[in-house]
Parts: sequence; C-alpha cells; structure tokens
Amino acid sequence: MKKTSVRTRVLTGTVAAAALAAATVGAVSASAESTDTPAVPAAAKADTQNKNLAPSSGLTIDAATRAAQAALDAATKAGQHVSVAVVDRDGVTRVLLKGDGAGPQAPVSAERKAFTAVSWNAPTSELAKRLAQAPNLKDIPGTLFLAGGAPIQSKGAPIAAVGVAGAPSGDLDEQFAQAGVAELAK
Amino acid sequence: MKKTSVRTRVLTGTVAAAALAAATVGAVSASAESTDTPAVPAAAKADTQNKNLAPSSGLTIDAATRAAQAALDAATKAGQHVSVAVVDRDGVTRVLLKGDGAGPQAPVSAERKAFTAVSWNAPTSELAKRLAQAPNLKDIPGTLFLAGGAPIQSKGAPIAAVGVAGAPSGDLDEQFAQAGVAELAK
Amino acid sequence: MKKTSVRTRVLTGTVAAAALAAATVGAVSASAESTDTPAVPAAAKADTQNKNLAPSSGLTIDAATRAAQAALDAATKAGQHVSVAVVDRDGVTRVLLKGDGAGPQAPVSAERKAFTAVSWNAPTSELAKRLAQAPNLKDIPGTLFLAGGAPIQSKGAPIAAVGVAGAPSGDLDEQFAQAGVAELAK
Amino acid sequence: MKKTSVRTRVLTGTVAAAALAAATVGAVSASAESTDTPAVPAAAKADTQNKNLAPSSGLTIDAATRAAQAALDAATKAGQHVSVAVVDRDGVTRVLLKGDGAGPQAPVSAERKAFTAVSWNAPTSELAKRLAQAPNLKDIPGTLFLAGGAPIQSKGAPIAAVGVAGAPSGDLDEQFAQAGVAELAK
Amino acid sequence: MKKTSVRTRVLTGTVAAAALAAATVGAVSASAESTDTPAVPAAAKADTQNKNLAPSSGLTIDAATRAAQAALDAATKAGQHVSVAVVDRDGVTRVLLKGDGAGPQAPVSAERKAFTAVSWNAPTSELAKRLAQAPNLKDIPGTLFLAGGAPIQSKGAPIAAVGVAGAPSGDLDEQFAQAGVAELAK
Amino acid sequence: MKKTSVRTRVLTGTVAAAALAAATVGAVSASAESTDTPAVPAAAKADTQNKNLAPSSGLTIDAATRAAQAALDAATKAGQHVSVAVVDRDGVTRVLLKGDGAGPQAPVSAERKAFTAVSWNAPTSELAKRLAQAPNLKDIPGTLFLAGGAPIQSKGAPIAAVGVAGAPSGDLDEQFAQAGVAELAK
Amino acid sequence: MKKTSVRTRVLTGTVAAAALAAATVGAVSASAESTDTPAVPAAAKADTQNKNLAPSSGLTIDAATRAAQAALDAATKAGQHVSVAVVDRDGVTRVLLKGDGAGPQAPVSAERKAFTAVSWNAPTSELAKRLAQAPNLKDIPGTLFLAGGAPIQSKGAPIAAVGVAGAPSGDLDEQFAQAGVAELAK
Amino acid sequence: MKKTSVRTRVLTGTVAAAALAAATVGAVSASAESTDTPAVPAAAKADTQNKNLAPSSGLTIDAATRAAQAALDAATKAGQHVSVAVVDRDGVTRVLLKGDGAGPQAPVSAERKAFTAVSWNAPTSELAKRLAQAPNLKDIPGTLFLAGGAPIQSKGAPIAAVGVAGAPSGDLDEQFAQAGVAELAK
Repeated sequence: MKKTSVRTRVLTGTVAAAALAAATVGAVSASAESTDTPAVPAAAKADTQNKNLAPSSGLTIDAATRAAQAALDAATKAGQHVSVAVVDRDGVTRVLLKGDGAGPQAPVSAERKAFTAVSWNAPTSELAKRLAQAPNLKDIPGTLFLAGGAPIQSKGAPIAAVGVAGAPSGDLDEQFAQAGVAELAK
Repeated sequence: MKKTSVRTRVLTGTVAAAALAAATVGAVSASAESTDTPAVPAAAKADTQNKNLAPSSGLTIDAATRAAQAALDAATKAGQHVSVAVVDRDGVTRVLLKGDGAGPQAPVSAERKAFTAVSWNAPTSELAKRLAQAPNLKDIPGTLFLAGGAPIQSKGAPIAAVGVAGAPSGDLDEQFAQAGVAELAK
Repeated sequence: MKKTSVRTRVLTGTVAAAALAAATVGAVSASAESTDTPAVPAAAKADTQNKNLAPSSGLTIDAATRAAQAALDAATKAGQHVSVAVVDRDGVTRVLLKGDGAGPQAPVSAERKAFTAVSWNAPTSELAKRLAQAPNLKDIPGTLFLAGGAPIQSKGAPIAAVGVAGAPSGDLDEQFAQAGVAELAK
Repeated sequence: MKKTSVRTRVLTGTVAAAALAAATVGAVSASAESTDTPAVPAAAKADTQNKNLAPSSGLTIDAATRAAQAALDAATKAGQHVSVAVVDRDGVTRVLLKGDGAGPQAPVSAERKAFTAVSWNAPTSELAKRLAQAPNLKDIPGTLFLAGGAPIQSKGAPIAAVGVAGAPSGDLDEQFAQAGVAELAK
Repeated sequence: MKKTSVRTRVLTGTVAAAALAAATVGAVSASAESTDTPAVPAAAKADTQNKNLAPSSGLTIDAATRAAQAALDAATKAGQHVSVAVVDRDGVTRVLLKGDGAGPQAPVSAERKAFTAVSWNAPTSELAKRLAQAPNLKDIPGTLFLAGGAPIQSKGAPIAAVGVAGAPSGDLDEQFAQAGVAELAK
Repeated sequence: MKKTSVRTRVLTGTVAAAALAAATVGAVSASAESTDTPAVPAAAKADTQNKNLAPSSGLTIDAATRAAQAALDAATKAGQHVSVAVVDRDGVTRVLLKGDGAGPQAPVSAERKAFTAVSWNAPTSELAKRLAQAPNLKDIPGTLFLAGGAPIQSKGAPIAAVGVAGAPSGDLDEQFAQAGVAELAK
Repeated sequence: MKKTSVRTRVLTGTVAAAALAAATVGAVSASAESTDTPAVPAAAKADTQNKNLAPSSGLTIDAATRAAQAALDAATKAGQHVSVAVVDRDGVTRVLLKGDGAGPQAPVSAERKAFTAVSWNAPTSELAKRLAQAPNLKDIPGTLFLAGGAPIQSKGAPIAAVGVAGAPSGDLDEQFAQAGVAELAK
Repeated sequence: MKKTSVRTRVLTGTVAAAALAAATVGAVSASAESTDTPAVPAAAKADTQNKNLAPSSGLTIDAATRAAQAALDAATKAGQHVSVAVVDRDGVTRVLLKGDGAGPQAPVSAERKAFTAVSWNAPTSELAKRLAQAPNLKDIPGTLFLAGGAPIQSKGAPIAAVGVAGAPSGDLDEQFAQAGVAELAK
C-alpha cells in the first residue's frame, strides 16, 4: 500500500461513502452488512506517521483461540468442567468456550474474571487480596474478584486476559488460565 | 457406573449436600466454585430408565469448536472479517470467536443469528422471508432475522446453530455458517 | 479427529431449509413461529452413535411441574405464601409458580436460589456457608446465596433444582424446596 | 376528602414493626425472608369499608395453574412443543411452563403475548391487526403483537391472560391459549 | 351489575375479541391503546362467588397520592430535598415524586426502599437490622436495605409502602415516610 | 446570601469536604444519605455572574404535580383508566401516577411519550407523523412515537412534558395530556 | 395556589405544535430530529417571573470540557492512564474522556464516581468512609464508593462533579479530579 | 504453528503478578485501581515481532477530542444544540460531549450513530439507504440508522467515527460530524 500524506489517508466520511458506493455496486446482497476493511496489519504499518493515531497491539484470533483451547485442555485433563474466556484490552470477548458439563454460571464468570485481570494487569487471585484495602473495587460493573483470571502481557502491559470458571476452587481455575497464558510463550 | 433404582438415583438435596461436604473436606480452597459433576455421558446412559427424565443430545465442545473454526476459516479464505457463534438448543453460546478485524456489531449479531436459527430450525435467510407474513416475529427478544445463521440438526431436530456476521452481505455470512455446519458431517 | 458417518444424520442447514420449505407449504399461517421438532426421545436415542453429540438428561415438564407443585403444597400446608421455581442444568426456568399472597421479591428470589443450587450442585443453605471462604462468589450474576434452593440430581450430577422464596426464614423455604425434590423420588 | 375511622385498620409502619419484632422473636432464622402476611381473603373482606382501598380480584394460583396446564395439554395433544405463561392484571407472571422440546425463544414470547393480551383486553391476534392503524404500539416495552395471547376476563374486565408460543403458527398458539382460558369456565 | 354464572362471567378470549371488535367500530383512532376496563370496584364485588378468583385490596390512586404528598410535605417542612415513592403489593410504583433539589440517586432509592418495605412488611430500618443474620437478603433484585421505607397495612397485611430518599439520614427519610403512612389513618 | 468572587463561589471538593465534615458532626445517623443542598433559587440567583454556569429553569414539583393531577382528572372525568408522567428537560421523571385500573403497559408508555415530547418539543401526535420521513427516529432509546405526549414550554423552549397512556386511543391520551399542560397556564 | 399571568409564556402543546409545523416547513429533512430550542440563557432570564418554574444553574459545556481536560492533563503529567467524566446535578454525563491506555473498567468507574459525588455533595473519598455507618448506601444503583469523585459547587450546592478512574490508587484519581474542579476557579 | 522466541515478551500471569507485587509495595493506597501500563507506543513498537500479536491503530485522545470539539463548534456556529460522540473501532466511546441545550435523547443517539458508522465504515446517511435492501440490519443492538454518523478512516479502514445528534435534521447532524472528521486532516 502506498504511503500518502495525512490528508489523503484520513478521508472524510463523504469521500469514504463515495468510494464504498462504488465498491459495492453489484456486490451488496439483500442482507448487506459490509465492513470492507483492508487487512489490519497493512493499515497499521503506515499509520506510524499519522500524528492522530497511536499504535497498539492485540492478540490475533489464532493466538486467542490457542490460549483458550490450552486452558480448556488443562481443565479437561484434570477432570474439571469449565468455561474459558479470552478478552482483549478493551474488555471485549475474543473467544468464549463453554466446556462440556460446565454450569450455567461459568461463562459469565469466566468473562468477568478475564475482564478483571486485564483491567488491573494482575491475576484475579492477587486482585482479590486488594479488596482488603479497597473493598468497593468489586462494585465496578463487569468485574469479578475470584481467582481464575490471568493477564496476557506484552512488555509488561496487559493486552488480553484468560478467564476460567467452573472448577471446585478458584485456584484450580487460575491454574488452567495460566496454562492458557503459558501456551502463548511456546 | 452401577445402575440403581430411581429412588437412590434421584437424591434429595439434603443427601447431596452431605455427600458434597464429605467430598470437599480439605479440597475446597478460598475461591471454591465446585460443581463436582460426574462425566455427563455416564450419567445420561443410566437415566433412560428414570421416568422423570428425558434424554437429549447436544454438541460436544470439540464438535462446536470445529464447526466455529471451519466457519471462520471459510470467511478468512474469502478475505472477510467476521465473528462466529455456536449456540445450543437452549440458546446458550457454546463457542464465540471474534475474528481479526471484525466490527463491534459482529459478535452479538452472530449470536443472535444462531439463536434465531436454532429457535425455528431453519437458516435465517429462510426465516427472514417469513417476516412478510409475520412481521412481528422479529420483536421476540434475542432474535435477529438476517442471513447468516444455520441450524445443526440431528435427525431433523435442531440441536445447535452456527451464526456468522461481518461480511459485506448476509448471503456470504450464511455461506460461511454452512461451512461450519458441513464440517460436522465430515 | 475421526471421521464418522453422520452425513445423513447431521444435515446442513441448506438441506434442512429445503425440507422445511416443503413441509410448510400451505401450513405456515400469518404468525408462523414453527419449530417442527421431532419428538426429543426419538432423536436422542439414535444420537448415541454420533461422535459430535453428547447425551444428557433433563426433567420432563411433567416431573418439573410435580416437583414445583409439591413444594408449593408443602408451603401452603405450613401457612406460608411463597414462589417456587424449577430450573434446568442450563439455568433456564422450566416452571415458575407465584403463589397466592407471595411478595414481589419472591419469584426472582426463587429462580436465583434454584440457579445457584444447580450451578454448584448443593443446597443454597450449604452454599451460603462457603461464602466465609470465598465471599465474592455471590457477585456472580444470577446467583443468590440464601437458603431455599435444592438440587435435583441424577447419579450425583445436578440436572435441575428447586428454589423457594417467601417464607419467614430461608430454612423454611428450603424445607419446601426439599419437599419438591423428594416428590421425584416417589 | 372525608375522614374515615381507619386508625386501627391502617397501622403506621412503626407499630407494625413493633408487632413484627414481637412475632419474630425466636422465629427468624439465619436466612429470614419473612412476609408474615395474614390470609389474603380475610384481609380483603374487611377492606371494603376502608375508603383508601379499592377491591380487586386476581386468579388464584390454583386457577392459574389449571389454565396453564390445560393450554400445555392442548398443545401436547396436537404434537406441538410450546411454552405457556399466565400473567396477572399487573403484568406479573403467575405461572410459567417451558414444555418439553420448546425452543429458547418460547418462554419470553409466551410471557409477552400474555402481557399484551391483558394490557389491551383482547387476543393478540386481534391486537396485531390494530398495528395497521397504530404501528408504534408495538414499541411499548414488554409487548409482543403475535397471535398466541388470550385475556381472562371477569365481567368484561381483564384480570389475567394466557400466552402460548412455540407452535408453527400463532393461530395454533392462540388456540392452545384459548383452551387454557376455557378451562376456567368449566 | 347482575350476577351471572361462572361460565358467562369468565369469557373466553374469542368472545371477548368479538365484543371488543363491535365496541370499537368507529371509535379506535390512529393510536389506539384501549383497555376498556369496566369500573374495578363493580367488577370485584361480584367476583366473590367465582372460585377461580381471590379478592384483594389496593390503595386508590387518591390515597396513594395523599400519602406521597404528605411525605413530601413533611420533608419540605424539615428543609429536606427528597424523592417519594408509593408502591403497591406487587412492587409496582403507583406514585413517584422527585422533589425540588432532590439528587439523581433519590428516585430509585425511594422506589427500592418502598419495594423492600412492602416485600417484608416492615420498615426498612427494621429490615436493615436483619442483615446481621441474613446478610445476603440484600442481594435480591429490587431491594434496598436503608432506612426510609414504611409499609402501609390493612389488618396487618402489607398492601403498599412509602419510600423516601434524599435527607441527610435514613432516619429522617423514614420519619417522612411514616408521615405519609399516617396520613391515611386520618 | 452574599455575593462572592468566582474563586470562592466554586469551591474545590477538598474544601467542600472539610465544610461538610464539620457540618455533619453529630448529625449523620446510621443511614446517612445527605445532600445538604442550600435552597436552589438562592443559589441560582447569584450564579448569573459565574461564567462557568448557564441558568436554566425547570418545573417546581408543585407545578409538575398540578399538571399530572389535572391530566389524570381529565381522564377520570372521561371514564378512562390511565397513567400520567411529567418529565423534565433532562428526560427525568418528576411525577408518575398510575391511575386506578390502568394497565401494566401504561406507566412506561406515559414516561416514554413525555420523554419524546420534551426531546423534540412537540406533541407526540405530531412527531409520529415525522416518521413518514425519518422512520428510524423511533429506534432512539427511551422514545415512543404514539399520541399522548405534550411539551410544556417556556418562551418556546421545552422545559418539561406530560405523557398519558391507557385510553382507547392516543388522541384521547393526548387530550388529557394537554389538559395537564393547560393547567399551568391558569 | 396563586394564579399568575403565564398564559403567553407557558404555551399548550397544541399551539407549540402549530408554531413548530410552521417553522419546519421546507426545513425538515429526511432524518429530522429537531428540537428548535431558543437560546437557553434568554429563556431563563424571563422565567424568574413564572411561578411554575424554579431557576437552576448548570455548567456550560465549555466549563465542563475545561474541567475534564484539566483532570486528564494532571493525570497525564503524573504518567497515569485514566478516564474522566463530568456529570451534572441530574447525574447526566456532560463530558466523558477515555484517555490513552485507560482500561475498560475506567469510563464507567469515572462516571459512577462523579455520580456519587454530585449525589451527596462530597468527594467520594469522604463518602467511602460513611459506609462504616451506613454500609448499604453502596447498593444504590449508579453509585461507586471509591476515591476519585469530586463535586463542583456553587454557593455550597452541588451543580456537577468530576470523576476520575484508572490510576493505581483512588487517592491519585481524586487528586486529578480536584485538579479539574480547581480549573473552574481560575 | 511456528514456535517463536517470545518467552520474555509474553510473560505468564504468574510472573506478571510477582513483578506487579514488587512494583506496588508502598504504592497501593486504600483505593488501589492500578493498571501500571507502560507507555502504549513503546510497547507496540516491539510487538511487531511477536507472532501472537496484530498491530492496530486508534485515535489518540487528543485527536478524538479535537474531532469532537470541531463537530460541536460547527453545530454551535449554526445555532444548533447537539451532543457529539467519538467511538473507536471497538465501538467504545472515547469522547462524549453533551452540548448546552441538547435534549435527553441526544447523547445516546450520537453514540449509536458513531457506533453504526464505524461498524460498516460509511456515513449513516448512506447506511440508512441500505435498509431498503436489508431492513433488519437496524435490529442489531447498539446501532442507529439515522444520518449524523461519519467514519474516520486510515487507508480506507475504519478506525473511529464521529456521531452527532440534536439538530433539526440528520443531514445537519452529519454535516457537523463531517466537520469533526475533517479536523483530523488539517
């Protein structure tokens, strides 16, 4: 992709709409939900010169899936029925797996543990201890201060997290979550 | 697992609690979330003689993951950025994948398309046509009448569904969803 | 992954749609909400050979209703005004009864107690004690750690639960819930 | 406004609290959720002389259960898998039954159909026709304008409603709902 | 209103629809939202012979408004800025007043205090004390265990409640709520 | 109240906290919910010289209550069972009345009609017509495009609105809402 | 109640609709969302003579933005990644900034801290201490009792609040929030 | 999958926790909410060699604020009272401004328009036209198909969007949104 000045790179919506209209002629079907996004890596490479933009990194879906699968496999090997979630730095779920035999409370628990781990960049077993000092942290919407969430980091910064729920103890859940994190270091 | 009479198989909660208390002595850690469920297949086999119970079938997490992955792979091969969901007959999400570059509207769209497909046992492209006759069907909570959802059936009954969202057209989304369904017939 | 001959059993959505279209010619009325599901037992019997599927068991609506009614009858006999819920292993309500004179807080309390009991496979009176070790368990959405919920088990695994709310004490509520569970052992 | 001698009948909360405190000494257990309501019929009889109160009527739980069961039986006899709800004049669910094989969309559909029928005192098949004139009625929260809801009346006033969902057509659903209503006239 | 047999009093929805259709010819405007309910007291009088129905009593809107206004006046006289809610036995709000200068947290607090008071038939100052024994009572949706809610009773049974929020202390709030309850005894 | 420079009038929270701490010594009871707001009119008068602040006007609770009562009285006189809501310019409910015999759909309908009227400064009967040109306006959360909402204006600007719901037609509802608006012009 | 001559100032909705209809001829486009409100200050000036209205004051968007920006700048200078919210006296968000690198839990935390500060007119670090006496205050919807919220006052009354979240300690968050409040005193 | 040397870059959660514990000794105050994220740009630069990660770009808060302010200024210059939102590619709000005099429906409308524009990479005026072909697109949660949203693009890919609501027409709203987008090209 050629490098262009900031002005042409950051198009106004009007121009974009025109381009899109052209692009979709004959292609938009009766249930059109297009995004038409170019490949994300390509776009990001050139953006480093756009002063309006800050680069960031996120797990690929391939990596996120491997982490989730590794966590689930660890649980299955231990004879436990769990759910596993991988959420990104924005708290958005990238992967959710409800394992065989996992209870109805497990998926949302897994997501919230992961959300909590990525928000504070620490395993939820550690974060649960902080409640002794700041008990109302747990009133923040979307959080769950139970062992079972583990952050995935890149140079120390949280970029995602794995959450596991359903084992007889949070410590077991977190052990499985850590197996998911460890998978990415292989 | 030995077969026992109905009376001993369907225990009262009191007895169950006692059993559980025994089982968890020394095992329940500080974040106990136990379910202690025996292997699901084993339990179900014996249940056929319990008149209180009806047998049913659901996708294994392994099958659900393969279906979701196949749908995502089909989309990726076509250069599309999508989210994929597999929901079971109860409308509960078993697998959710938010693919690279998929928009923020995609995960919930995928889940709702799958929910809709499993609820009425038909692809959502077909179901969307029914709105001509019954336009208010789409007001039922949790549904989305856009192409992209495809049921997974066992002997004609819906046991799960695959939902895909994010491609420029619902027809493309549904093509990917069908690739997920087809994976299970291999 | 082993390939199994399930081609004819697990149809793709496309084929299903065609079958459905045929089946519904002349039959779909102006408010069509069809499911067209064959009898569940029949489907499940054959599924034991489909490697993509795991068999499971759930209460029949007849059993669930008997359990709920028995719990309500026990409460009425004791002069208490309660609500009763029976939820399945997925946490979905199968039966809800709001008894005469039950307060507005009772139905949702009954459902949550049952949800909690089926999630951890123990009476909620037992589960409430676990909060001493893991106080944040009660922050999991959908749960309520008050006596009054009792699991229904099959070979030790939780397949459903009865929840009761509205009596002057949770112990009374749970006594009624256990009466519901006991009904199924008759 | 006329002053009436209701001092002894309408107690202040302070006095009530005292009475309650006395009543519950030694009785309130660790999970107390008491209501301590005297029998509803007794209270209502005397209330006709209290100018602050208006008498009303509602289905007994026994009648509501019979209506729901009759609707479900009618559906089962017709080979349909449905959910049934009975809601009272306040739109509160008194009975909910999720029948065997009913889809995940069925329970909430049944409740909303019943809510709609009791709100406008007409079967939802009739109400759906009104949308031709007032299309935005269907945007009112909690409503669903699909055939399948039928009001239960007392001297022409709506006191409850039965809602059914899950059959291949709303007309079938409403036929089953009417069977529930008819049961109460026996 | 003439007394009729149960059969004709509890009409099926089909008949009701027919009657309604006749009644609304030429009268239903473009935004029809009819209920067409006959006067509630009249209907209720005759219902005492219908075995499907249980009589109950609720505050008239006139009484509910007087109670709310009296509570607000008491607060204003004391120089406090509060919100006041009156909810019925079903937990439904009959009157809500957001007084001048009341904070954004006050209306929902007032409603929840009233909901709590009517659910357990006691002032919330009393109910808050019960949490020492049953701390998880406060996890029931819709409740708020803060002083400021007072039940309105008829022969000891809760038929409604007044909730007040916004004063510097819950004790003050409850004093105003009791002024509302007391108004109905005049 | 003395006039002070901007600096002393807009205190930092730290100073405010100190003042508050002093003010509440010995006064904060066990359920403290203080706001400690000085009289609103007094504060607003002096604020006209604070460049950070913009003056605005809102209905007093007395005026809002009179408007709501007038609307309800008009409905009652016409033999209709309705709910009435008065919302302010921020869309916050100031008064809600659920009249005798009003259906469960009425309160939320009344609030949404009022919300819609105050948002676009026109009666909802007029606004409903605009949907012909902009049909998706009705998808904005909190709105309801049904006749029955009427704005209350001050020099042409919307400062509040009255919403009514429950009569057999929206035109009737709006007639009652206008009676509420008209009351304020007396 | 005194009758005042506000006939011309408080118009009925009918007249307003007529005026609006005239005003929008030729101007309402296909996506009309008009408010047509005259300048707020002008309207407010004359309102002081309307007995139905109470004057109030709120931050201008300019002031609110300056406060939020000052809080964010203070955090950035300290090397912290935070979100900042400014809410008005009605609890409505006027400004929300999600700073670079702020976690997913930060925006809602910032809003709730500000909501809490404006509701009780005190910094949330002070309010958190009050929970020792009234622990259930924190169950009021929309609140968060964590340091980081600071009220903006006018003559002692709360007119808005700044909330900050994301720093390693609530004390730091509140320091930044106070920097936002202080900006308005410049 | 190729194994890459990312051991030191992608730490396991356990190691991360240890690092964090060290880092926060003496620093975590009573309301600790730390994230401790290193500067985002630094982290991202090195990540280009981690095969688990995909680089992406987002607006800086500075750019997002400038865009929002430019949109608001354009509206103010045109005499319109609006709300402005800037959301990122994940649909998360980065900046929200509720302008002076904007109605209560405006903030959520602005956010949803921006969400819609970023989801499909086109102005909402264009997207609204697509409903002619795919009317149910508008049922996707979080969307609003009204003119007023405009995408911000980088090399054709959507990285954020500006949404505006409150002007008398969506066309005006979108003109202001485009002014916000254009600001970033300066």
